[in-house]
Amino acid sequence: MTSKKITSVQNPLVKTIVQLQEKSRNRKQSGLFVIEGLREIELAIRGDYTISTVLFYPDIIQQTNIPISLAQNRNIELIEISKEVYHKLAYRETTEGVIAIAKIKPHTLPSLHLSENPLILVAEATEKPGNIGAILRTADAAKIDAVIIANPKSDIYNPNVIRSSIGCLFTNQIAVASTEETIDYLKNKNINIYCATLQDPTSYHTLDYNKPCAFVVGTEDTGLTQAWRDASTKNIIIPMSGSIDSMNVSVAASILVFEAKRQRNFL
Amino acid sequence: MTSKKITSVQNPLVKTIVQLQEKSRNRKQSGLFVIEGLREIELAIRGDYTISTVLFYPDIIQQTNIPISLAQNRNIELIEISKEVYHKLAYRETTEGVIAIAKIKPHTLPSLHLSENPLILVAEATEKPGNIGAILRTADAAKIDAVIIANPKSDIYNPNVIRSSIGCLFTNQIAVASTEETIDYLKNKNINIYCATLQDPTSYHTLDYNKPCAFVVGTEDTGLTQAWRDASTKNIIIPMSGSIDSMNVSVAASILVFEAKRQRNFL
Repeated sequence: MTSKKITSVQNPLVKTIVQLQEKSRNRKQSGLFVIEGLREIELAIRGDYTISTVLFYPDIIQQTNIPISLAQNRNIELIEISKEVYHKLAYRETTEGVIAIAKIKPHTLPSLHLSENPLILVAEATEKPGNIGAILRTADAAKIDAVIIANPKSDIYNPNVIRSSIGCLFTNQIAVASTEETIDYLKNKNINIYCATLQDPTSYHTLDYNKPCAFVVGTEDTGLTQAWRDASTKNIIIPMSGSIDSMNVSVAASILVFEAKRQRNFL
Repeated sequence: MTSKKITSVQNPLVKTIVQLQEKSRNRKQSGLFVIEGLREIELAIRGDYTISTVLFYPDIIQQTNIPISLAQNRNIELIEISKEVYHKLAYRETTEGVIAIAKIKPHTLPSLHLSENPLILVAEATEKPGNIGAILRTADAAKIDAVIIANPKSDIYNPNVIRSSIGCLFTNQIAVASTEETIDYLKNKNINIYCATLQDPTSYHTLDYNKPCAFVVGTEDTGLTQAWRDASTKNIIIPMSGSIDSMNVSVAASILVFEAKRQRNFL
C-alpha cells in the first residue's frame, strides 16, 4: 500500500525522471531508465528487470486496478502522482496512468543464451529509435535467439525505442557490443554471417538458412562497415525492381528473418 | 526564368500552401496538394502528376541547380521565396529548398493497368500516414501491380504519407475505393483474395501465390471488416511465437508481398 503522494513538479524524483527520459548520459550514470505503460512495465517484470518505483495517476488508474505483480511486490514503491506531475512525465495520453523507474541490464554478448540452431539479427549503427523498436518487434514475433546492436548510435533505453518496440525491448535477448566483438562472438560459435549489402551479393531467397545464422543489417544511408563485409559468409540482397530501390531497415530485416523462419518451417 | 519573388508569410499563396498542408478538406476542395523535396517532386513529374508551381529558397538551392525537368517546363511557375517563407512552409530541414503545388489524381479502380498475373496489396482503413507511406515503399520495392486503399481513414495526400513513402506515392499505381467496390473489382478480375486475419487462417507460407492475387491487410487494432472475410479466397496468418504476437501492418504486408515475389522468382 502506498502512503506517498507527489503533487509538485518541483519534486526531486520528478526532476530525476525527466532527466532519465531526456538524456542517455543520465541513464548511463545512474543505471536507471523510465518505462511508460502498464503492458510495458509488466513485460519488463516478466523479463526480469528490476523495478524500483511505480508512479500512478489515480484519475486514469485506480490503485486497486494496478496488477498484483506490481502492487504486491514489496520491492516496488508505489507513489500516487497528481495530474500536473503526470502530464509533466507522460509522453503519451494512452500510457494507462503508470510510469516506472527500472534498472538497466548489462546486455553483454556472453550473457546471451542461444539455442542449438540459433537465428540472430545484428543491427549495426542503427540510429533511429523507431527502427530499433521495429526490429525488436519483429525479433519478438519471430522469436529469434537474440538481437545484437553493434556499434550503437542510439541508447536502447531511449524512451522512443521502448515505445516503438511496444515493450519488445524486454521480451528479447539483446546484446550491445562493438562490431569487432560481435564478429568474434559469431565466429567462435560457428554462426554463419549473412550481410545485407550491395557488394557482390546473392539473392537472399536462394540461400539455405537451416544452419546457425546471423543476418546483419546496417544503416539505410551508409550500409555496413568493411569489417562485416570481410567477415561475411555471404553477402545477401533483397531483389528490388521499383523506382526507388530502397527499403526501410526494419522491413528488410523482417523479410530476411521470416524467410529463415519459413525455411525452418517456423520451428 | 522566374521573375516572381515572395518575401512575406502573409502572401496569399503562402497561406494557400499552409492550408493545403494542414487539412485534407482543403486539398479535396481545391484538387491540389503540396510536395516537399527535389526527389519527391521529380518522382511526381515522372509519375505524370501536373505541377503548377515550384517555390525555391535560393540559400539552399540555386535556380541553376533546379533540374531541367522543372526549370524548363513552361507550364511550371518558378517562384523564389525568402528564408522566412521557406521556414514557414518547410516541414523538414532536408527538403533541398523546394516546395511544389501539384494536382491531385483521381485514383479510381478502372484506371489501374494490371499485368497478366497481378499482385496487389489492399490496405483497409489504414489510419497512420507513416504506415501508408511504408506500405507504398514496399510496393515500389517489390514493383507490385497496384496498391488499393479501401475505406480510407487518411488522405493519401497527407504530407506525412508523401514524406514516409519517400516519394513512392508517385511511383505506384494507387486506387482509393470502398471495400465493396474493391471486392467487386477483384472478383470481376478473378483475382484471389488473401485476407490477413486471425479468423480460421492458413499459414501464409503454405499457399501458392503464382496466380493473380491480392493481399488484404487491416488495422492493427480492429483487423478487417466482415465483408473481406466473406469474400476471402483464404484467410492467412504469419505464424508468430513471441510474447507480444503483434506485427506492424507495413511489416506484415512486406513479408506477404515478398513471399509472393519469392514464389514467382522475382519475375
